[in-house]
Amino acid sequence: MKTDDEVKDFILNGYREYVPHVSIDCAIFGYHEQQLKLLLIKLKFIDGWCLPGGYIKRTETLVEAANRIVMERTGIGNLFLQQFKTFGDPNRARINEFDEELWFKATGVKVSKDNWLIDQTISIGFYAITDFSKAEPQPDMMSEKCKWFDIDNLPKLEFDHEEMVKEALHTMRVQLYHYPIGYNMLPEKFTLTEIHALYETLLGKKLDISNFPKKLIALGLLKKLDEKRSIGPHRSPHLYMFDKEKYNMAIKEGVVLS
Amino acid sequence: MKTDDEVKDFILNGYREYVPHVSIDCAIFGYHEQQLKLLLIKLKFIDGWCLPGGYIKRTETLVEAANRIVMERTGIGNLFLQQFKTFGDPNRARINEFDEELWFKATGVKVSKDNWLIDQTISIGFYAITDFSKAEPQPDMMSEKCKWFDIDNLPKLEFDHEEMVKEALHTMRVQLYHYPIGYNMLPEKFTLTEIHALYETLLGKKLDISNFPKKLIALGLLKKLDEKRSIGPHRSPHLYMFDKEKYNMAIKEGVVLS
Repeated sequence: MKTDDEVKDFILNGYREYVPHVSIDCAIFGYHEQQLKLLLIKLKFIDGWCLPGGYIKRTETLVEAANRIVMERTGIGNLFLQQFKTFGDPNRARINEFDEELWFKATGVKVSKDNWLIDQTISIGFYAITDFSKAEPQPDMMSEKCKWFDIDNLPKLEFDHEEMVKEALHTMRVQLYHYPIGYNMLPEKFTLTEIHALYETLLGKKLDISNFPKKLIALGLLKKLDEKRSIGPHRSPHLYMFDKEKYNMAIKEGVVLS
Repeated sequence: MKTDDEVKDFILNGYREYVPHVSIDCAIFGYHEQQLKLLLIKLKFIDGWCLPGGYIKRTETLVEAANRIVMERTGIGNLFLQQFKTFGDPNRARINEFDEELWFKATGVKVSKDNWLIDQTISIGFYAITDFSKAEPQPDMMSEKCKWFDIDNLPKLEFDHEEMVKEALHTMRVQLYHYPIGYNMLPEKFTLTEIHALYETLLGKKLDISNFPKKLIALGLLKKLDEKRSIGPHRSPHLYMFDKEKYNMAIKEGVVLS
């Protein structure tokens, strides 16, 4: 946890280290055993929840900044991070009647009208998917809680973060047809049933059993192993694993999986 | 054309009307009779070309700003504009050794080191597709030329605009599988051959003849008319048209066409 002096310094002088007017918000999806969750934080002095976010250091690329934010909130680095949309409605901070002046008063830091955090901010949305059982959620210095919520049971979200979550989910689901996923959400060796369940959970709908895995195999992204897992007297399904080289290439270039 | 006083006022005081640190760049693709082009501008005092762009008024949403920029450069309004990516590499303006100080010196306007146009800028990329034969390219006040280039024969691009064009093309091609296109690039009534040629040109590759049109028909986006076009003694292909209501819905919601 940061001390109050650090909060004060960030509010008053942060513009020297960070680019003003632009922030990043991250929709961090968590998958584990057919459950899909979303990581949210609760800002101090505000009732509702929001996506974890932050500013961009003047020395960072956007994806470096997003990686740092995700790392700070989850303890997990090097996730596959994708931009989904940039949000710039002039009134986006004031949706749900958020009052900046009151918020700063509550922090105890006196700010002037031209403080860098008060002026209009445009926010770049990134999404990531990880295994929520491996994450260690941590609030940031402006927030008091950080935790996972079931995707079908989210609390009230502040600012324009309701729209952000909708857009992140939509983009993630469209991109499932164009990028491989699963590398950090499945065991190293897995069955077709396991990867099928992952796709069904992320898409939020029932699928033809063989659709995605079949395409992944056809593209050489998924390799059938000479190994089976014994899960019952007459049940020993084949194991599969990703071809990491082709997987990384497909993450970079994109493919069509549908 | 703007007068020099307007240029001076924009350079010195533009931050009052526009959000600093964030710009928009537009990849405007033009289609006509199986040709694909890209609209580029040539800035004053710089050799290379770049995408048309601009800043966001403090009262505008991002898509309103992008629409204004496209309208100002082409004379065409209400295009289907899609964000493709936001670019924020700290050195993006300095790729190709662009020298801001020299550039401002050339404009004749004396700027201080903390001028709003000199500090780091993050740029939001939008793409649009239109019929280039209907556009009327216009340079902006910072540029001297604005014209169409064949997509396969682009000149040297300034800043990070080479990467922007690559990403815009990639996103446009991926999104062809998820959004209907063609409304402003085909005659009101068209043949399957015409819409097929449009998809082939935009994708830059040969396609199974019936693939995209078949999906569009199955989704109700394309209606077969009780009308034929006579193009020869034994050739009179059926005419088709878009169902505008379903088309607009699909633009909003997205579909899978592949």
